[in-house]
Amino acid sequence: MIRINENFTKLKASYLFSDIAKRVSAYTQANPDKPVIRLGIGDVTEPLPQVCLDALHAGTDELSKRATFKGYGPEQGYAFLREAIAQHDYAARGAKIEADEIFVSDGSKCDCGNIQEIFSTDVRLAIPDPVYPVYVDTNVMAGRTGTNIDGRYQGITYLDSTPANGYVPAIPGVATDLIYLCFPNNPTGAVATKAQLTAWVAYAKANKAIILFDSAYEAYIRNPEIPHSIYEIEGARDVAIEFRSFSKTAGFTGTRCAYTVVPKSLMAYDAAGNAHAVHALWNRRHTTKFNGVSYPVQKAAAAIYTDEGKKQVHAMTDFYLANAALIRTAVNKLGFSCIGGDNAPYIWVNAGRDSWEFFDLLLNKAQVVCTPGAGFGKCGEGHIRISAFNSRENVEKALDRIAAALK
Amino acid sequence: MIRINENFTKLKASYLFSDIAKRVSAYTQANPDKPVIRLGIGDVTEPLPQVCLDALHAGTDELSKRATFKGYGPEQGYAFLREAIAQHDYAARGAKIEADEIFVSDGSKCDCGNIQEIFSTDVRLAIPDPVYPVYVDTNVMAGRTGTNIDGRYQGITYLDSTPANGYVPAIPGVATDLIYLCFPNNPTGAVATKAQLTAWVAYAKANKAIILFDSAYEAYIRNPEIPHSIYEIEGARDVAIEFRSFSKTAGFTGTRCAYTVVPKSLMAYDAAGNAHAVHALWNRRHTTKFNGVSYPVQKAAAAIYTDEGKKQVHAMTDFYLANAALIRTAVNKLGFSCIGGDNAPYIWVNAGRDSWEFFDLLLNKAQVVCTPGAGFGKCGEGHIRISAFNSRENVEKALDRIAAALK
Repeated sequence: MIRINENFTKLKASYLFSDIAKRVSAYTQANPDKPVIRLGIGDVTEPLPQVCLDALHAGTDELSKRATFKGYGPEQGYAFLREAIAQHDYAARGAKIEADEIFVSDGSKCDCGNIQEIFSTDVRLAIPDPVYPVYVDTNVMAGRTGTNIDGRYQGITYLDSTPANGYVPAIPGVATDLIYLCFPNNPTGAVATKAQLTAWVAYAKANKAIILFDSAYEAYIRNPEIPHSIYEIEGARDVAIEFRSFSKTAGFTGTRCAYTVVPKSLMAYDAAGNAHAVHALWNRRHTTKFNGVSYPVQKAAAAIYTDEGKKQVHAMTDFYLANAALIRTAVNKLGFSCIGGDNAPYIWVNAGRDSWEFFDLLLNKAQVVCTPGAGFGKCGEGHIRISAFNSRENVEKALDRIAAALK
Repeated sequence: MIRINENFTKLKASYLFSDIAKRVSAYTQANPDKPVIRLGIGDVTEPLPQVCLDALHAGTDELSKRATFKGYGPEQGYAFLREAIAQHDYAARGAKIEADEIFVSDGSKCDCGNIQEIFSTDVRLAIPDPVYPVYVDTNVMAGRTGTNIDGRYQGITYLDSTPANGYVPAIPGVATDLIYLCFPNNPTGAVATKAQLTAWVAYAKANKAIILFDSAYEAYIRNPEIPHSIYEIEGARDVAIEFRSFSKTAGFTGTRCAYTVVPKSLMAYDAAGNAHAVHALWNRRHTTKFNGVSYPVQKAAAAIYTDEGKKQVHAMTDFYLANAALIRTAVNKLGFSCIGGDNAPYIWVNAGRDSWEFFDLLLNKAQVVCTPGAGFGKCGEGHIRISAFNSRENVEKALDRIAAALK
């Protein structure tokens, strides 16, 4: 008899986005004359940079001729892309990462979800709260947690992000083995300073632990003091894996390309205490279960590293950041404290009340959709996330309506 | 201390393609004046169909304007593609598969590799030999096998494909839970009749087992009696998952699109014997760890279901099959028995000697690269795989050289 992986039955069903969709749909059906503005889901809205469009067309043209046709590429990505990443995302910032330490993939969601496979099922987890649900759910599926009690899984050390710690979690007082960090943070928009990341690297080193560093939003950092990569921290090559995505950098949410960095000096251990190169493990996993990213898409990703590409990407992230600045200012003016929006496209608002109650208020009184913080974890309660991904016109209209509704 | 998944240490390193590459490279360096022809790796060589190229360009153009820009799509694929698949690949052949039973992905390698996650680690496996290594390796990683002894992992029921059974394995005499089948087969090119598949479905039903049916090569079937889908067999909806790919159908090896069918009536069980819908489990896995296929690529895949697309795809597979027919004829003329090549792009030659020895002979005497059967499993010993993926000119030249070398 075929048996299921019973860890799946421990998963708490996430009704966050379907609940939002239901409430929005009920409202629009009852009020067809009142169009809503969506600042909820974190999805980009602006066209792809022109350099990427040109590269997609050119890559497609290569597939039209036998002489330039591309079949299977290297599972880890083409050298032209890996080398551009190594040079522009790392060497240019003083971080020494080789091209063959970079694994190109079709999305950070996949990489963040799959990476845990190469580690033992009994490693001790440290995971932020609030959090991108993929970190937690993929470990539940793999059997690394107990049951969910009152919104939290047994067996996880939760890293609380609260107003009291400025939404940057403290180093845990207990030893853990696999630590998920995300800066600039989704959902809070908080960033970590060099000193804070240095403390995390020291903690990982002391515990022979590994940090999984998600920097999908690094392109939004404008403060020159804030590290874009964990590898800007001394010693991080020995304790960290980094996830990056072109989704929010260059509008690739529907185009699909990302990458993961696994330094060759990073080690993990077997039961006998022998060290194994994590790079070799991930390479085996990646080449066995993945077959490379679409060729024209890799060409499009490489295009953002040209001079013109850098300009276009900067203009796009500047545009969203200008939305974010408007949101921050408006939110503060209304008397709410918030974080994010200066080095991130999200603004995390301390609503001072139940997050679904505030969601309903904004929907019903201002026809604006946000994301209730409770959907991201226990520490999200009392907060909402507002996304800067929309047109200027919609953002301005939404802010006017919110101001009027809360007057 | 961070611990590794020690199941990875059980993996037998696969040196097949790197060994081939080394031997070919050594030969070409020693003989720079003798160009080799590659009929080894199963990768397509012809340009993408024009309908796909047009759709890639058109999809890219949509990403250039705010009004038609596409961000995150449904993880399971766009309705336009899922509906085209349901209608043309299933309804048209009398198999009842709904659009929402189809999960679009970026490759069958990923799907074949990931599917095992939703099942218990102690399910009993039945896996063919010779075989596409992904089926075995992903189960080793998940801890479903013991160690590798003499080329075979403990805990797997191997389904031998041999000259004696016409390379279609017999139903095992023991009960198993998760059965991998691939027809038309990689590497042998053998196909399964309706009667043979009916027997497998009955076996699965009797054992409450699930068949994982890989039909990545169905577009090469020309015999009208051979089923293209397991769902052409009565009752298969209750016992089978099917994997399909656009890689070999439409030359998408570098473009990346595939799909997996999980019927809603398919059940698996928990320890208490309660039935769970496999569709819900896979949907949870797919939406948690995957973020959809690139939009222009999905448009390109949908294009092959138009009338013009069908013609172009048929012309392309006809071209490779004509290569295959030439290879079959030549191999038979040389006195070797073989299978495949009539409803599949692979010809599996019974070499009557050590498969690496024959590989070396073809490389050194005919400058032709094939794949030694031993690389696909114990039953592959004594065989070689010849691929029909190349230009007509190269295939003809290779066959002339082989004939001369073996004279």
